[in-house]
Amino acid sequence: MLDVCLLGTGGMTPMPYRWLTALMLRSEGSNILIDCGEGTQIALKEIGWSPKSIDIMCFTHYHADHISGLPGMLLNMANADRTEPVIMIGPKGLFNIVRSLRCIAPELPFELRFIELDQNTEQYKLGPYEIQCFRVKHNIPCYGYSVLVPRKGRFDPEAAKAQNIPLQFWNRLQKGEIVPDKETGRTYRPEMVMGPDRRGIKVTYTTDTRPCDNIIRAASDADLFICEGMYGDPDCQDKARAYKHTTMQESAHMAAEAEIPPREMWYTHYSPSMTNPRQYIEEMQKIFPNVRCGKDGMIAELNFDED
Amino acid sequence: MLDVCLLGTGGMTPMPYRWLTALMLRSEGSNILIDCGEGTQIALKEIGWSPKSIDIMCFTHYHADHISGLPGMLLNMANADRTEPVIMIGPKGLFNIVRSLRCIAPELPFELRFIELDQNTEQYKLGPYEIQCFRVKHNIPCYGYSVLVPRKGRFDPEAAKAQNIPLQFWNRLQKGEIVPDKETGRTYRPEMVMGPDRRGIKVTYTTDTRPCDNIIRAASDADLFICEGMYGDPDCQDKARAYKHTTMQESAHMAAEAEIPPREMWYTHYSPSMTNPRQYIEEMQKIFPNVRCGKDGMIAELNFDED
Repeated sequence: MLDVCLLGTGGMTPMPYRWLTALMLRSEGSNILIDCGEGTQIALKEIGWSPKSIDIMCFTHYHADHISGLPGMLLNMANADRTEPVIMIGPKGLFNIVRSLRCIAPELPFELRFIELDQNTEQYKLGPYEIQCFRVKHNIPCYGYSVLVPRKGRFDPEAAKAQNIPLQFWNRLQKGEIVPDKETGRTYRPEMVMGPDRRGIKVTYTTDTRPCDNIIRAASDADLFICEGMYGDPDCQDKARAYKHTTMQESAHMAAEAEIPPREMWYTHYSPSMTNPRQYIEEMQKIFPNVRCGKDGMIAELNFDED
Repeated sequence: MLDVCLLGTGGMTPMPYRWLTALMLRSEGSNILIDCGEGTQIALKEIGWSPKSIDIMCFTHYHADHISGLPGMLLNMANADRTEPVIMIGPKGLFNIVRSLRCIAPELPFELRFIELDQNTEQYKLGPYEIQCFRVKHNIPCYGYSVLVPRKGRFDPEAAKAQNIPLQFWNRLQKGEIVPDKETGRTYRPEMVMGPDRRGIKVTYTTDTRPCDNIIRAASDADLFICEGMYGDPDCQDKARAYKHTTMQESAHMAAEAEIPPREMWYTHYSPSMTNPRQYIEEMQKIFPNVRCGKDGMIAELNFDED
């Protein structure tokens, strides 16, 4: 299972009625926060999820609206008595940016560990997650993220019996362990009894970019594709191009072009000038039917497919 | 006239129902912001005052809850097309802190000028204001501020007539100019026709400190004394002492001890644990009758005394 909360949906600057864009993911008690603008810690308090469980923080890029809330969030985690290390992921330069911002949060009771991205795509297995990082097209280095909760194949008891694997080892093999059998001298491997990996859960998140192939590839087969919808008004197309953002139309087209279309899509990162993004949604659903306007505090509970 | 808005009243961490403590002052189109924590720019948007007119920013100290909103506020001022310099005042180290935080706001269309405080008291005349800075007692260097709008003495037309000062020069003398009279060769000075300075307007603001004489002196004869009321519960006295904060009781006593008691007092900088500061107010009014609980967005319009 993967809980998802879109903490905010604003771009550029926080507004009284709209927090800055940030996403929180939660699985097996381990949380990921993607982006942390000014006020993200307040948005988190509003939904009542603890800052203590944030094991991983990903940053798309270092414009202020995506990272200005970091010192406050770290202090909040410290106040919640976190002591375990936190893994920070972001484009090259992350360590220096975090060090600078920490001039007002110099002492933390937990360690920060840094992964700086500089490849077109990178992939990390961390806790219950697989995190796929892909470069997008903004006016400074910027990445999107797919967060996957993988799912093992089905255990095949008939195969276990046929290979004379004692019952006592089945559970460990299901957990992925390689099990030596001292009595017979044989070694049992998970692949002897487990079917191929099954479809897991995938959430793809990207903002602050022009449309690009990396996004279309990342959105493929996602349970939820959260994508920038900076402008809905077609008159803003030139502005989107100039400032390296994506319109609602362009994002819907990317979803529609994915090899396996995402199951659902949410818009986020609205321009402060767009006070009612929903006025454009019917038009967008003609391009990609399963698109909705994200709003602050919107939650989804994603589960593995039923067998 | 001096407009005052208490933008927030929280201490330590911003809450969904309470912005961090910050004060905005406005006179003659020139604004002063004292402290700028995470969310202060949103609080400012809520009351609808423009960030463009902030000519002076004062910082009490550099704990995150008093300065973490600076990068966002500066970017907001840039978006509002400000081009005039901004004067920044704070304890020694201000330049370095601001430079560090600006890693996410490196380009601004206006200049920042720095005044770093290291004396027990310092005083600056800036625009329509006189700013008195006084050291207080926190666990890092911390200052309180009195902002004064001075008022000239009354113009005395009888004195002007008696000294044969031509009518055409009266207005310039009232504005404080020294006026040479080419016809007679005489020079007229403002003090020839102006009475002694009259009482102006004074607002005193201090948070994050133990009680001290500097505060009692600063509060004297203030129109409005805004002071920390971190805790109301007498059981929190030890905590206040340990973490260098002031209880509501202690602040009320400081107001009562001022040589000329301040005309009105507001509490601010409430602990997140204190959800209803008003429950203590009647008790406090026994110590200092004219005290109120500040709340987010509270506004006062202060005027010169009627003659």
